[in-house]
Amino acid sequence: YKSQNEYRIEADTFGELRVPADKYYGAQTVRSTMNFKIGGPSERMPIQVIKAFGILKRAAAEVNKDYGLDPRLADAIIQAADEVAAGKLDDHFPLVVWQTGSGTQSNMNVNEVISNRAIEILGGKLGSKDPVHPNDHVNKSQSSNDTFPTAMHIAAAKEVHEVLLPGLQHLHDALQAKAVEFKDIIKIGRTHTQDAVPLSLGQEFSGYVQQVKYSMERVRSAMPRVYELAAGGTAVGTGLNTRIGFAEKVAATVASLTGLPFVTAPNKFEALAAHDALVELSGALNTVAVSMMKIANDIRFLGSGPRSGLGELCLPENEPGSSIMPGKVNPTQCEAMTMVAAQVMGNNVAVTIGGSNGHFELNVFKPMMIKNVLNSARLLGDASVSFTDNCVVGIEANIDRINKLMNESLMLVTALNPHIGYDKAAKIAKTAHKEGGNLKETAIKLGYLTAEEFDAWVKPHEMLGPK
Amino acid sequence: YKSQNEYRIEADTFGELRVPADKYYGAQTVRSTMNFKIGGPSERMPIQVIKAFGILKRAAAEVNKDYGLDPRLADAIIQAADEVAAGKLDDHFPLVVWQTGSGTQSNMNVNEVISNRAIEILGGKLGSKDPVHPNDHVNKSQSSNDTFPTAMHIAAAKEVHEVLLPGLQHLHDALQAKAVEFKDIIKIGRTHTQDAVPLSLGQEFSGYVQQVKYSMERVRSAMPRVYELAAGGTAVGTGLNTRIGFAEKVAATVASLTGLPFVTAPNKFEALAAHDALVELSGALNTVAVSMMKIANDIRFLGSGPRSGLGELCLPENEPGSSIMPGKVNPTQCEAMTMVAAQVMGNNVAVTIGGSNGHFELNVFKPMMIKNVLNSARLLGDASVSFTDNCVVGIEANIDRINKLMNESLMLVTALNPHIGYDKAAKIAKTAHKEGGNLKETAIKLGYLTAEEFDAWVKPHEMLGPK
Amino acid sequence: YKSQNEYRIEADTFGELRVPADKYYGAQTVRSTMNFKIGGPSERMPIQVIKAFGILKRAAAEVNKDYGLDPRLADAIIQAADEVAAGKLDDHFPLVVWQTGSGTQSNMNVNEVISNRAIEILGGKLGSKDPVHPNDHVNKSQSSNDTFPTAMHIAAAKEVHEVLLPGLQHLHDALQAKAVEFKDIIKIGRTHTQDAVPLSLGQEFSGYVQQVKYSMERVRSAMPRVYELAAGGTAVGTGLNTRIGFAEKVAATVASLTGLPFVTAPNKFEALAAHDALVELSGALNTVAVSMMKIANDIRFLGSGPRSGLGELCLPENEPGSSIMPGKVNPTQCEAMTMVAAQVMGNNVAVTIGGSNGHFELNVFKPMMIKNVLNSARLLGDASVSFTDNCVVGIEANIDRINKLMNESLMLVTALNPHIGYDKAAKIAKTAHKEGGNLKETAIKLGYLTAEEFDAWVKPHEMLGPK
Amino acid sequence: YKSQNEYRIEADTFGELRVPADKYYGAQTVRSTMNFKIGGPSERMPIQVIKAFGILKRAAAEVNKDYGLDPRLADAIIQAADEVAAGKLDDHFPLVVWQTGSGTQSNMNVNEVISNRAIEILGGKLGSKDPVHPNDHVNKSQSSNDTFPTAMHIAAAKEVHEVLLPGLQHLHDALQAKAVEFKDIIKIGRTHTQDAVPLSLGQEFSGYVQQVKYSMERVRSAMPRVYELAAGGTAVGTGLNTRIGFAEKVAATVASLTGLPFVTAPNKFEALAAHDALVELSGALNTVAVSMMKIANDIRFLGSGPRSGLGELCLPENEPGSSIMPGKVNPTQCEAMTMVAAQVMGNNVAVTIGGSNGHFELNVFKPMMIKNVLNSARLLGDASVSFTDNCVVGIEANIDRINKLMNESLMLVTALNPHIGYDKAAKIAKTAHKEGGNLKETAIKLGYLTAEEFDAWVKPHEMLGPK
Repeated sequence: YKSQNEYRIEADTFGELRVPADKYYGAQTVRSTMNFKIGGPSERMPIQVIKAFGILKRAAAEVNKDYGLDPRLADAIIQAADEVAAGKLDDHFPLVVWQTGSGTQSNMNVNEVISNRAIEILGGKLGSKDPVHPNDHVNKSQSSNDTFPTAMHIAAAKEVHEVLLPGLQHLHDALQAKAVEFKDIIKIGRTHTQDAVPLSLGQEFSGYVQQVKYSMERVRSAMPRVYELAAGGTAVGTGLNTRIGFAEKVAATVASLTGLPFVTAPNKFEALAAHDALVELSGALNTVAVSMMKIANDIRFLGSGPRSGLGELCLPENEPGSSIMPGKVNPTQCEAMTMVAAQVMGNNVAVTIGGSNGHFELNVFKPMMIKNVLNSARLLGDASVSFTDNCVVGIEANIDRINKLMNESLMLVTALNPHIGYDKAAKIAKTAHKEGGNLKETAIKLGYLTAEEFDAWVKPHEMLGPK
Repeated sequence: YKSQNEYRIEADTFGELRVPADKYYGAQTVRSTMNFKIGGPSERMPIQVIKAFGILKRAAAEVNKDYGLDPRLADAIIQAADEVAAGKLDDHFPLVVWQTGSGTQSNMNVNEVISNRAIEILGGKLGSKDPVHPNDHVNKSQSSNDTFPTAMHIAAAKEVHEVLLPGLQHLHDALQAKAVEFKDIIKIGRTHTQDAVPLSLGQEFSGYVQQVKYSMERVRSAMPRVYELAAGGTAVGTGLNTRIGFAEKVAATVASLTGLPFVTAPNKFEALAAHDALVELSGALNTVAVSMMKIANDIRFLGSGPRSGLGELCLPENEPGSSIMPGKVNPTQCEAMTMVAAQVMGNNVAVTIGGSNGHFELNVFKPMMIKNVLNSARLLGDASVSFTDNCVVGIEANIDRINKLMNESLMLVTALNPHIGYDKAAKIAKTAHKEGGNLKETAIKLGYLTAEEFDAWVKPHEMLGPK
Repeated sequence: YKSQNEYRIEADTFGELRVPADKYYGAQTVRSTMNFKIGGPSERMPIQVIKAFGILKRAAAEVNKDYGLDPRLADAIIQAADEVAAGKLDDHFPLVVWQTGSGTQSNMNVNEVISNRAIEILGGKLGSKDPVHPNDHVNKSQSSNDTFPTAMHIAAAKEVHEVLLPGLQHLHDALQAKAVEFKDIIKIGRTHTQDAVPLSLGQEFSGYVQQVKYSMERVRSAMPRVYELAAGGTAVGTGLNTRIGFAEKVAATVASLTGLPFVTAPNKFEALAAHDALVELSGALNTVAVSMMKIANDIRFLGSGPRSGLGELCLPENEPGSSIMPGKVNPTQCEAMTMVAAQVMGNNVAVTIGGSNGHFELNVFKPMMIKNVLNSARLLGDASVSFTDNCVVGIEANIDRINKLMNESLMLVTALNPHIGYDKAAKIAKTAHKEGGNLKETAIKLGYLTAEEFDAWVKPHEMLGPK
Repeated sequence: YKSQNEYRIEADTFGELRVPADKYYGAQTVRSTMNFKIGGPSERMPIQVIKAFGILKRAAAEVNKDYGLDPRLADAIIQAADEVAAGKLDDHFPLVVWQTGSGTQSNMNVNEVISNRAIEILGGKLGSKDPVHPNDHVNKSQSSNDTFPTAMHIAAAKEVHEVLLPGLQHLHDALQAKAVEFKDIIKIGRTHTQDAVPLSLGQEFSGYVQQVKYSMERVRSAMPRVYELAAGGTAVGTGLNTRIGFAEKVAATVASLTGLPFVTAPNKFEALAAHDALVELSGALNTVAVSMMKIANDIRFLGSGPRSGLGELCLPENEPGSSIMPGKVNPTQCEAMTMVAAQVMGNNVAVTIGGSNGHFELNVFKPMMIKNVLNSARLLGDASVSFTDNCVVGIEANIDRINKLMNESLMLVTALNPHIGYDKAAKIAKTAHKEGGNLKETAIKLGYLTAEEFDAWVKPHEMLGPK
């Protein structure tokens, strides 16, 4: 790399531009940075899209080689594309999401970087477009209109498989372990946030397990349409300027490179003009977020206290809460998770709006859509791991508190119905509620039964299932 | 009214149609019912829009009379329009929201009903368009494109003033009364859902009061742009086929009829092509919904129990909860309110999407937009009254419980810092937390202070403000 | 039915109430109408939920009969429940959506109506609860907490199968027929809303066909979890007070009654505390809405004109547009469809928020959630049929216009590249653009080729696919 | 700065941690980076929040000095805080948004950085907390619970004033200039995307001007509540551990430092427990986004072509579109703007959900909420400037095309009504539509009028307003 202060002069059809000498990108990339000063560095095209482009460009070069592209050029492109895919050239992709809605400029950014890096590999001069031309060679048989959606699908599928699903599985397993660990702890149930009949803490956690299990199913059931790649559709979906078989071979190569079951999209017009598959995936992520919000909310309320809350769970303390107030463990992991959930729900609306506003042969909300899908997948995956490792695995049942609430509960009175009749049972509950007493004492005081009878008849562990 | 089995034949430019003999509407209305079988009766154009049209048509007739419309016809139109505005002819408006996006068919429905009713008043024959023509007379100097937005604004403003703001004021006053009633009850505060330093229950409720007060301010601050009426813009905003002064006079007449400060929109192109004013109002309603969700959530959690919840508030019992479990008062009003809040948030997204998708001189999401805005305003207003009357006014503080939680709290230890130092104070709290004891007993047991000193130094009521 | 002015006196645990003599509902229903005056008649619990309750109550009665319920009572319940399911008793369900969040009051409304109707069948006295008690017999082995979610799933699944999927299939078939009809019409493509390379009108429509095909797949892929029924979970999911096997038998009976593959939910805690399955379904509906918005937008723009728009499609004229302006066919069906799409997107947010805010053993946004899911399914299904019958089937290609735009297009110049080289081709295009000429004339004028060569080389029908 | 490989050991109450030697932050910041590995660097707390904290900490130090804080310490804090506010220490704030929902860790990050930098200024040892303690001195009279909301409001208000409003004003002025420039260009109007009566291009643009003007009004009308600062509320809103007058003085100092009219919040309980003011502001931004979507959509459609679109506007060409297809100017600025609009709408939902889910004395969605509000304000502001400079100012009217469409239009026939009657006028239009002729030729051919009469009667410029 050369000094940051040096530039080379490159030209596009609009004229000459100064390109930083130590960058592989070219004039079209620089021009985009000038025309789209929106949002700054934190708004850059997600690096996962760039890496997905690396995979695609490598696959296209392999297929183009089959169709006659000079092997020397093809191999250099493949090497450069591999470097892009491996994240070795991340600094060469400065463009923001808020550019042309087809992602054309990011496609050109990739073409320029790969071409210049391939030129370098082959001993040529950066910016010369010789012997590797960004359009004629790197972008051969391609158009921004089909490559960008292809990169969107590759990036989304990889993020789902590498971050989201492992994160959810991790959370699932930890919750499952807790469901087993807590299976014999009987506690008061709560409906309408109010005391209700008992269930086991394990049963309560089994509901969370089910939600996470279904979260994974939901995401997986959206994937078949994400595995469909637009590559081969070129400008409007017809495949003009490609070769018969190109689309299928590229998809097969991408599948081979990624280990994911990508196929060529059966209808390229749909694949360019609409991104319903990503809206669908975002909808699945939205549903996952809904599940996460429920679980994290429950856990923070069940862990509220230490004295004035529900206090049934003890959450691990991860950082100083209140320096003077031991026991005040702020449920910070729950808070991070619920914030993530809210963000994912908002992202889903952005994706929905973008997806619905395509026109004719091309949807031009592509960069915004993929940014939000990737953000949702990443945040949910990362937050699942953080929440698991820093919260779920360390949750302990506060058994004394659980038992105390159970024993004080008035809902157990329902167990007396078959023995002393509804009216006497209700009388016991009403009296206990009025006087603040517990059921057993009140029942005995009212003379309806003995202590032994109460113990024999009121058995919470027999209220946990049908008979 | 004649029998429902009789029909008259009317024609529009598309041919003849059978119109129910007992209905004032005509062929265009019937045709719309044939072409838009979407959603059924519950999806009808909100009756508030129809009534607003009644006001507008009356105002237009008055102004047209000034400009030369035959007074006999004008007066009949005025009488018929008044009947529409008064809700006397509600059965004559069968069209659903899901029609043409300009609301043209509802404008024609109104024109047809008013013309036929006016014809009836003048002794003519229904469907004859003589002597009162739906287009030439009732719709004179108007177009669907400016009348529908005008009716939208009139309906929205009236719903805000007649339902929403009174409902919010009602809730505000009840919460304010509770804030005063509870001003001397000191309770544990909760942050992160965890125990925190104390505040008074009155202070807690004062936050809700502030939210509702600002709710009203937010709605009011959106109204100036809702008071702007499109009438006079006719087909594309130019005012073609109207008279100079028509727009201003209609707005003034509507203002006079409603008692609300309507004015003519300063730019009719914006008023037809965009409905940003309703998006803005919907945004205010969305913010109100956010406030309501917070307040209702707090109240149901503070009222949770009777034994295993927070239990600081006793909510009024309005209906049978659990037949055998006295004290289980389900917070059903909170539930209705939070469901309403969620609906309003969803409605806001629908309004946003509709508002953003107008093209050129006309936004064609008008019926959908106004439906959602009216629904939000109505639900929030009604729910505020229901929540107030059936919940807020009957809330009682469970003082024993509040005191118990206060006294058991470990957070009060912070009051000892200035007297015995941070380290000893922390030691007390840690020991109490570990052993389950209360602060006073633990402090004495540790020998750090006397019972008298504790009582002198730990005074929650001195922790309620700055010094 | 008796006169509307007569009442009978019924009592619940709160005291006596006047119940209209001609209504089957009882005190708890009346009390709900007093406590929840929110939104009025248009906000009633969707009738599909009531009918689904009819199915469920019948199924439960059958199973209860197996488990020992007096066959005489069971049969009367079954008959009454069938009437509810058949819509014969719709007037007896006055409650609004905005009630208790568990739908308890609607469950009781159903129990009261069925019990009173069964009493009537058996010759008893309305309101006597004898011999058929609403709780002890109609609600036997059930709780609001498991019946309402069961009714939600039944209602949603039926609406999907009876309204939504048939509507989508209808639209799919009509679009497919158009794709075939238009397969040989070559037209200009448009990307970025700008002229692009050609495709066939059939190819363009094939993209819509694919979107609708996938719409159906998306909805179907969400159904497995909707087919899971909560019945048998009772109050908190444990199945307390039910019999082993009850859950499975009820699900099987409902499956048999509806012809849909309902099964008992594998985890009842999840089925009561969360409604992720409905959030997921709503997400699928949201994606369908996105597809519909795209298709309807394209069609209205392609049909814009008659003189100053794109004008490639002639849309059927269904109602008077402009009386004096023939050819101004307002795309009213597109407008209805896009308004529906916006509504569904908003509904999805409401469902999402409701779904995420459940607490502990019970989500209490149930009525709001199912209202929105049913509304979305119904509107999309109805609008699909309306859009198909009143628009799609009547679409005609304006072949003269399509050919004119094709022939005037400058994009065809790309076909000359292999023959005269890029530079000359570009020169032709630039000259034609500057001078306003067409490609053929300009090319000949510039002396680059002959008319015969142009015709031989520029063949749009050879630009429709890879080679 | 020291080498990145060196560490110092710091401790918090959880034990020792290695802190990079070249960083001013301390143990609590490091611990947060370990506990919240969510999203990576692009998800960092917005730097605007950090800078706002710099302003707040400086203001607090000034006021604390008034109340007795050692001036030497106070002055060092002030100097360090100024450096934070000036962005000189940006690298010392590594925490992500997805942390504790109160933003506690970012508050501590700021406290640690300022304390260490102040220690350095005073010649002390980093990490020693001597002589400037992060809690006792930098955070004096403050709590995360009131400082974070204060920083949220400062950051939001500054972004609105520094980025958003200037951007909107810039856009407004450019559109206004175009409205004036285009005032005499008469064009076909379009309603329902269909040809309608004429208006001037200046009138059309005046609608956009009005939308942007109202955008600014909407944002400004939300600001009064954003100017309210929570500082002085401390932990739960009571102001425990502050001094009387602290709140007012801090607000006044912040107002003085920023030049914005900040005041102390009248109710601190609301200011900590709810962030309705930011939901309200986000709602205003959402409405701005709606306006932007409309304007950008119109401009791209009006600029569509070059041959097969509407073609009334020529948009500036900013980058290579199609290399061979001159005149294909992709409306990339419109695309960036509409993507931004969709994002802002999604952000608004995230803010809404976060705002609605606060509990008791503290809303714990703070970092997520401010991230989205700032993102929306920044994107809208930046995109407005980009859209203005790279698109709006360069828009040219394609007068030939506009005139051609006008002259071909059939809508002008309405001008003949008063002269030859409705029936003949309609006959002309119908004939012209059927035969494809223009109005003038057809009218003459039908013998209804002369060419001179047509020119005298059909004057589009007289159709632009009421008479």
